Amino acid sequence: MLIVLKERDNSEELDRLLSYFNKRGIETYLIKSDNRTIIEFSSEDSNVDKKQIMSFPVVDRVIDIKDPFRLVNRKLIEKDTIIETNNIPIGGDAPVIIAGPCSVENERQIIDTAWIVKEHGGHILRGGVFKPRTSPYSFQGLRKEGIHLLFKAKQETGLPIISEVVDSGDIPYLEKYVDILQVGSRNMQNYELLKAVGRADKPVLLKRAMSATLNEFLMSAEYIMMEGNRQIILCERGIRTFTDHSRNTLDLSIVPAIKQITHLPIIVDPSHGTGRSDLVESMSLAALAAGAQGLMIEVHPEPQQSLSDANQALNPLQFSNLMHKVQHFIEWQKAYANHSPAY
Amino acid sequence: MLIVLKERDNSEELDRLLSYFNKRGIETYLIKSDNRTIIEFSSEDSNVDKKQIMSFPVVDRVIDIKDPFRLVNRKLIEKDTIIETNNIPIGGDAPVIIAGPCSVENERQIIDTAWIVKEHGGHILRGGVFKPRTSPYSFQGLRKEGIHLLFKAKQETGLPIISEVVDSGDIPYLEKYVDILQVGSRNMQNYELLKAVGRADKPVLLKRAMSATLNEFLMSAEYIMMEGNRQIILCERGIRTFTDHSRNTLDLSIVPAIKQITHLPIIVDPSHGTGRSDLVESMSLAALAAGAQGLMIEVHPEPQQSLSDANQALNPLQFSNLMHKVQHFIEWQKAYANHSPAY
Amino acid sequence: MLIVLKERDNSEELDRLLSYFNKRGIETYLIKSDNRTIIEFSSEDSNVDKKQIMSFPVVDRVIDIKDPFRLVNRKLIEKDTIIETNNIPIGGDAPVIIAGPCSVENERQIIDTAWIVKEHGGHILRGGVFKPRTSPYSFQGLRKEGIHLLFKAKQETGLPIISEVVDSGDIPYLEKYVDILQVGSRNMQNYELLKAVGRADKPVLLKRAMSATLNEFLMSAEYIMMEGNRQIILCERGIRTFTDHSRNTLDLSIVPAIKQITHLPIIVDPSHGTGRSDLVESMSLAALAAGAQGLMIEVHPEPQQSLSDANQALNPLQFSNLMHKVQHFIEWQKAYANHSPAY
Amino acid sequence: MLIVLKERDNSEELDRLLSYFNKRGIETYLIKSDNRTIIEFSSEDSNVDKKQIMSFPVVDRVIDIKDPFRLVNRKLIEKDTIIETNNIPIGGDAPVIIAGPCSVENERQIIDTAWIVKEHGGHILRGGVFKPRTSPYSFQGLRKEGIHLLFKAKQETGLPIISEVVDSGDIPYLEKYVDILQVGSRNMQNYELLKAVGRADKPVLLKRAMSATLNEFLMSAEYIMMEGNRQIILCERGIRTFTDHSRNTLDLSIVPAIKQITHLPIIVDPSHGTGRSDLVESMSLAALAAGAQGLMIEVHPEPQQSLSDANQALNPLQFSNLMHKVQHFIEWQKAYANHSPAY
Repeated sequence: MLIVLKERDNSEELDRLLSYFNKRGIETYLIKSDNRTIIEFSSEDSNVDKKQIMSFPVVDRVIDIKDPFRLVNRKLIEKDTIIETNNIPIGGDAPVIIAGPCSVENERQIIDTAWIVKEHGGHILRGGVFKPRTSPYSFQGLRKEGIHLLFKAKQETGLPIISEVVDSGDIPYLEKYVDILQVGSRNMQNYELLKAVGRADKPVLLKRAMSATLNEFLMSAEYIMMEGNRQIILCERGIRTFTDHSRNTLDLSIVPAIKQITHLPIIVDPSHGTGRSDLVESMSLAALAAGAQGLMIEVHPEPQQSLSDANQALNPLQFSNLMHKVQHFIEWQKAYANHSPAY
Repeated sequence: MLIVLKERDNSEELDRLLSYFNKRGIETYLIKSDNRTIIEFSSEDSNVDKKQIMSFPVVDRVIDIKDPFRLVNRKLIEKDTIIETNNIPIGGDAPVIIAGPCSVENERQIIDTAWIVKEHGGHILRGGVFKPRTSPYSFQGLRKEGIHLLFKAKQETGLPIISEVVDSGDIPYLEKYVDILQVGSRNMQNYELLKAVGRADKPVLLKRAMSATLNEFLMSAEYIMMEGNRQIILCERGIRTFTDHSRNTLDLSIVPAIKQITHLPIIVDPSHGTGRSDLVESMSLAALAAGAQGLMIEVHPEPQQSLSDANQALNPLQFSNLMHKVQHFIEWQKAYANHSPAY
Repeated sequence: MLIVLKERDNSEELDRLLSYFNKRGIETYLIKSDNRTIIEFSSEDSNVDKKQIMSFPVVDRVIDIKDPFRLVNRKLIEKDTIIETNNIPIGGDAPVIIAGPCSVENERQIIDTAWIVKEHGGHILRGGVFKPRTSPYSFQGLRKEGIHLLFKAKQETGLPIISEVVDSGDIPYLEKYVDILQVGSRNMQNYELLKAVGRADKPVLLKRAMSATLNEFLMSAEYIMMEGNRQIILCERGIRTFTDHSRNTLDLSIVPAIKQITHLPIIVDPSHGTGRSDLVESMSLAALAAGAQGLMIEVHPEPQQSLSDANQALNPLQFSNLMHKVQHFIEWQKAYANHSPAY
Repeated sequence: MLIVLKERDNSEELDRLLSYFNKRGIETYLIKSDNRTIIEFSSEDSNVDKKQIMSFPVVDRVIDIKDPFRLVNRKLIEKDTIIETNNIPIGGDAPVIIAGPCSVENERQIIDTAWIVKEHGGHILRGGVFKPRTSPYSFQGLRKEGIHLLFKAKQETGLPIISEVVDSGDIPYLEKYVDILQVGSRNMQNYELLKAVGRADKPVLLKRAMSATLNEFLMSAEYIMMEGNRQIILCERGIRTFTDHSRNTLDLSIVPAIKQITHLPIIVDPSHGTGRSDLVESMSLAALAAGAQGLMIEVHPEPQQSLSDANQALNPLQFSNLMHKVQHFIEWQKAYANHSPAY
């Protein structure tokens, strides 16, 4: 059970409430969320009377949550979380388009890509600089040099930038330049990294691990949120299954399923989700139709010259066609929302 | 390698061609497809000269196919196969909506559902009468009585009907009444049944098995097509994975992937694919956006009274809302197709 | 709830019991198992008094079973089922070794293999004659001719024989010659075939489907048993997962798990379970160590000449080494069983 | 291609070799392994003559490796790696038994468990102190206090100890006390942590991630080995599949498969691999029979009081029975190895 306290909590009143629990031998747990304090305790062990608790003036609401996650739970925060970065809202009605190369390779490549993204209506530029690669012999990213190139692309085009963090030690440096910190699939259950980005000042894009259930995905978001950072964007990027026609299986059904139970926005990465550039357009449309609040697309000026994931990046023409169709679809979605029958 | 012969083949000329192979010790294999004859042989074992073969007057085209499937291959038949039943085209530009209850339960239920389906723009009525159930103690379907009720619903509403066949012995009877024969997931590799429906006169809807790869799925269609039946509709209905937020994982990426390599139409069943009625609308839209040429939707007048799969059937209001949105989306798709940039 | 009636049931007494249920509006379901009759009804819907039921003289026992399976349930039949064919017990303390080629190819191949199997201590000869192949262009088996060759191998060596049935129409013919009927993975949920072998007079070896849960596997056995055939041997043969070092993932943990809840014997097929002959010996030992009551091994006089599954068949030397080790291991197991501490 | 240099390499001779490559425009990559230097280059891009390279006096061997992994490759190091800690060899003929509770909970619990482990022949004590838990609300481990309790258990019983590291910052502290550092499944692709333990002075036990392929598993070991640490123990602990009778699916076939291609030892954790204490004994035997070079077993004085993973821990009696059987089996294995036929 969760007890949400009133916004301007009076610590004296809080002490009184806590001593009420204390006397009854009930262990409580304090969660700070924004400017609210939330008290958690296990209602199963106790004969606590909900009415009595409500009578304490410091108490705002009492919520019965049996789910393992709390702060990310829509039962606690009913309204959709909307995250703003550089005036771009993520999680609202208009889907956000994040695009860019898998890795930042050189100045010309990232600047060129940034202009391509901007020109066709993309909102945020992605580019890996610290690359978590399966093989230690694969290109590991340009690291700090890459951040500077990415930042330069931001300065030239005005597009906010997102890049992956793989080591909590890099956060102070990354935070100065990037607008969103990405936690990759392989690190979704690297709890030390989750806590570290939870203390950062920037929004976090959390990618689902290849074999994570919906609950595990949300529990990782909960780790971040517990540290104070409420700005979390979830990202479905394909799960590992037996299939062989695509590199991963894009699990679009998690989009409507997760939106029912969390207030956090969820976007979809059809590039990693399929591993095939020829499937990206279809699956982008499908993701938006399923309710995704954004897309993360790999685009590269010359995919065949790309240092990583060449098969899944779109070339400029493919990206242009995709964005043309995506924008038409988004307009239809908006128009339909305004004329749809009341449910 | 496949050699497609000219339409009106001269058996004398054919014999000459076959003896050409025979002399060179090359084993050939004759495939009859529609009014065409196709000769297959393994080009790896041979030093056959393509030009020489082309010089035989009976030869129309020589196609190099390394894929394990041939007749279902777009390399053999480039144009989309369009199947017509009762003036409803399946596989063309306009998606087809198949809807109805999991099982036919009684006259009132199936007639009521048929009217609901028709009223909201559905094209074909589904209803199980021979039910393959995991448990022998579960409701096994009304069998022959069910066919008659389904047929009665067709007579009243004019909707063509589809029902599952589980035993080849039932085909002669089923064929008299139903417009499309369905082969279920559990029987996708029941080759005796595949061959039997391959000899039937009705179109076949073939559901992907829960752990079938794209190739295995197409090979099962190949079994049907080898027996002469070219009217095959593929159906994605979710694969088995580790996830637990949905009963199966709807693998929408197979839709654009399979359309590249086969000329057969593919539709999607989001009801079985998710097992949750609250996800059906989102996944229906997503399926169409991914390129599915139709949907198969479970609808029931009173889902909570349903004898099977109660959690996944839509009630009439949900179906009405779904169809409203689906039809708007289809109109957008059509409008977009007419105004899209040339690729 | 299950009510097991006394062996020589008096139909008059049975009628009295049934009318007792009838008066209370409780639906019952009669199951015939061997010479016993079992009455099933849902205890949830009723306020039936167990003591009252026990007072009917025809009643032997009342068992509370909530599992979806009944006849295969160890709660109904506590003792291990032991199946005998040609004086070979399957399901007892001594593991049974079934070995032979994937397919019967010609007389010499099957006779040679039979002698190899016999010479090294194998008990039963396997050999496919009706082959369910993914591709219609692959070798489909010698069919009836194959049965006769297999039977000839039996006559020469004295080894009982097992072969797969794919069509219920073939059962009358197969039954005359083979000692055990095999239902393959692809047909595990082909309920019409399950019912047909359930009416056959021969033991049935039922292979787990590639994506079947433990419950689904047992439910398929229940289908067979409901038709009267109690002689069922379960067989684990690998499940479909994301791994790529083996063709399937041999799920050995199902062996101890299933033995707890069913009285039916379970054996393991490490040849199909791994798809690699170099892993077969290790996984054979592992299977027996996990408690498997037998092994099904592919062996071929010249695996590289084999018409199907060449990579997984053992050659005669590998089979000899395997059997040497397996027999030592079985002796150790027997010795340990006799000297183990009482649990 | 890999060029292994002679042990006492002469830097002048090395320079000459490198300039040979340089002149031909061939990029090389130096790998330090123990006291050897290895030069890697892509043989595909070059017309380098193997004989010419062999003629350089500094060159010991030239090995053609196409696998993505090198240092862990048996082609590079043919002999089994044997790791010694406190006179206990890991990777040799005698399997090693690592046992203990999931988490260190208090002094009495860990000391009691240590004595139980020792008394029944276990070699190494495990105990989690930094716990990576799916939920931030679950018990996170006693952290530094736990290390001291674990170390106390070592001092009392003489058993070496192993514990999981989740943050590279904790390594300097952990290294002082524990004998083996464990990298858990969730961190198998946390490359920063892999590199950090690669620079540590203690052996590393690397657990396979829930959805890792064999290659990915070995590539993670390669990351560790590239940093200089050659003492790596691999551990199979179950993969994520669709099954529901066990928490994970223990993939024992990876044991013989991985031993063919790597010189590193591999052990098995049947406790996490099944999640069910009643399956642990069977799967322990199966693991050893498959060739595992050790077991990692959860044991707890009172499993029902355990703070984590209560269902999978053995109680002292179960552990005693397991060890009795395991030791008999190991003796049989040893005896058989001495009398087995030469392959």
